[in-house]
Amino acid sequence: MADKRIFNFNAGPAALPLPVLEEIQSSFLNFNGSGMSITEISHRSPWFDQVINDAVDRTKRLLNLDDRYHVLFVQGGASLQFAMAPMNFLTDGKSADFVNTGTWSTKAINEAKILNKNHSVVASSEDRNFCYIPKDIRFNPDAAYAHITTNNTIKGTQWHTFPDTNGVPIMADMSSDFMSRPLDMDKFGMIYAGAQKNIGPSGVCMVIIRKDLLETANNEIPSMLRYSTFASKNSMYNTPPCFGIYTIQLVLKWLEETMGGLEKMEAHNQAKGKLIYDLIDNSDFYRATADKDSRSLMNVTFRLPTEELEKSFIEKATAKGLGGLKGHRSVGGCRASIYNAATMEAVQALVEFMESFKKES
Amino acid sequence: MADKRIFNFNAGPAALPLPVLEEIQSSFLNFNGSGMSITEISHRSPWFDQVINDAVDRTKRLLNLDDRYHVLFVQGGASLQFAMAPMNFLTDGKSADFVNTGTWSTKAINEAKILNKNHSVVASSEDRNFCYIPKDIRFNPDAAYAHITTNNTIKGTQWHTFPDTNGVPIMADMSSDFMSRPLDMDKFGMIYAGAQKNIGPSGVCMVIIRKDLLETANNEIPSMLRYSTFASKNSMYNTPPCFGIYTIQLVLKWLEETMGGLEKMEAHNQAKGKLIYDLIDNSDFYRATADKDSRSLMNVTFRLPTEELEKSFIEKATAKGLGGLKGHRSVGGCRASIYNAATMEAVQALVEFMESFKKES
Repeated sequence: MADKRIFNFNAGPAALPLPVLEEIQSSFLNFNGSGMSITEISHRSPWFDQVINDAVDRTKRLLNLDDRYHVLFVQGGASLQFAMAPMNFLTDGKSADFVNTGTWSTKAINEAKILNKNHSVVASSEDRNFCYIPKDIRFNPDAAYAHITTNNTIKGTQWHTFPDTNGVPIMADMSSDFMSRPLDMDKFGMIYAGAQKNIGPSGVCMVIIRKDLLETANNEIPSMLRYSTFASKNSMYNTPPCFGIYTIQLVLKWLEETMGGLEKMEAHNQAKGKLIYDLIDNSDFYRATADKDSRSLMNVTFRLPTEELEKSFIEKATAKGLGGLKGHRSVGGCRASIYNAATMEAVQALVEFMESFKKES
Repeated sequence: MADKRIFNFNAGPAALPLPVLEEIQSSFLNFNGSGMSITEISHRSPWFDQVINDAVDRTKRLLNLDDRYHVLFVQGGASLQFAMAPMNFLTDGKSADFVNTGTWSTKAINEAKILNKNHSVVASSEDRNFCYIPKDIRFNPDAAYAHITTNNTIKGTQWHTFPDTNGVPIMADMSSDFMSRPLDMDKFGMIYAGAQKNIGPSGVCMVIIRKDLLETANNEIPSMLRYSTFASKNSMYNTPPCFGIYTIQLVLKWLEETMGGLEKMEAHNQAKGKLIYDLIDNSDFYRATADKDSRSLMNVTFRLPTEELEKSFIEKATAKGLGGLKGHRSVGGCRASIYNAATMEAVQALVEFMESFKKES
């Protein structure tokens, strides 16, 4: 079946590494000699302990995390984090700073509003339809945290350097570029990432949280909404999303052992992005939608001269086995999502198609 | 690999029907001709629409649900429902009645307490260590809902008839016996069920909610904690747990088309339970822990004359390919979980082993 697979440019759920999918498939009826599927084993078994602990260990190695951090697996996606973070950390009148770079940041701000939590929007790129990442932001030194969305899947923007926040810990929604590059973890108090872009299937969200921040959390909220519940039980207060965590473990293994870690992954992602952006920049047929210094290496958003041409581009690409190139329904246009698992072969096939479509049109 | 599979008596995550696992495996690299894995397709695609809509339609047919009900898929397991239910329905001083039949009911009550919500525990079987289901309960006619846990996996108890609640809608945690028998839905305002016992893998919780009850819900809480968010977006306000919903769809298809619906499933479950309970009742070696009229057809909990014999029983059973027979860590003893997917062949193998172990001991 593998030979009939398409080049998958979906924004998420997105392409996963083929060797990972093949490993899941081959052991699906009998995981690691257990005589059961990974979907049938107890989360209280040595088999699953090995899976979750290996996923945590690999995360720590890949990101050079020391013992100051917890690595947690939570359900509900980034959307639940938008609420959990203020519920845990904005008590006793504390306030958070938000940078608004589009839909996902806006949603995070909105949940703080629903909860009646103090917050400031210290910068926004709404004035130009979120096509850039704001610079020279002044953060409040007494904020509990500074919230940013590191990559915007819809507008195709990405933070390439992280701001100086006056010592305030950054809380980053990294759903769409997590594990795509090395990080200077000293800047971050918390990172959360829905798995379904870069590290696994939908239904599990990784949360990395610094212990000193966790110690300030409100524990008078429901058990499943407290980070401390997850931290004290190795993410197994209740039954975790076992299949998702298992898939993450395999993706992290691939990232570490096959791709060679985050420096190499970043170089690979830069090479892939350069291929497409160079074509766009050397053309007056394709037009990138994000400012050059804010362009995402994960989601390349672009327009063609007309909507008719865009429709035809997407249809013909689909017919050639290049899938998922339609822009988000809220903005239209085209989008090529080239997360970690998008291969150079896939990107080359896309670039060749873009060249030939331009010539034909 | 299928021939090296064990007989799986785990309490959850638990055995899934082998034909379902085989279908997932065979299409894992290329779902339904999409050229992508089910873990890689967009939740906004026609492929996934078909999956989620079919899962909803089959649920409605299996339970004879009319248009008064929503069928939703939520993350966070039953444990998150313990908090979401009071957050949504216990506003403006409203109160809920709870029946405490053990660990899971106790946890549900505890979340209402954490949230400072009005509630009454109208009955409890704690006086005899939760070994029975209370009878002749007087519910408060002005309660917003009456909460019960229909099956207790740890104590091996199950409600065999549902109480008269003075017209108050029952809210039932059915995680461990959902879809094991037909239901008179008129009694229920809401049912929730973590999938990992009877209908799928961990990481997705099905919620069935009556629309008139939903209309009374509080909408001034975070988006991901409002049932209305899920109801208004066909469970796709954010990316749903696609793999879990897909597996549920296949399990429901198996339930409907292979097993022949809930009446037949119930008869099958009764026959399986009878085999084990008859052996226990005709023996003075094995002893059932739950009162006879409250015994679960899903989790058969029993003791042997000594803890040493129990240890040896579990070890020898495991060696013979009968897995997951250890009682919950909080109570000890033995437990055979025989959910829908446990086959008659598995139960017969267990009964034969129990007979031979008794003779040897």
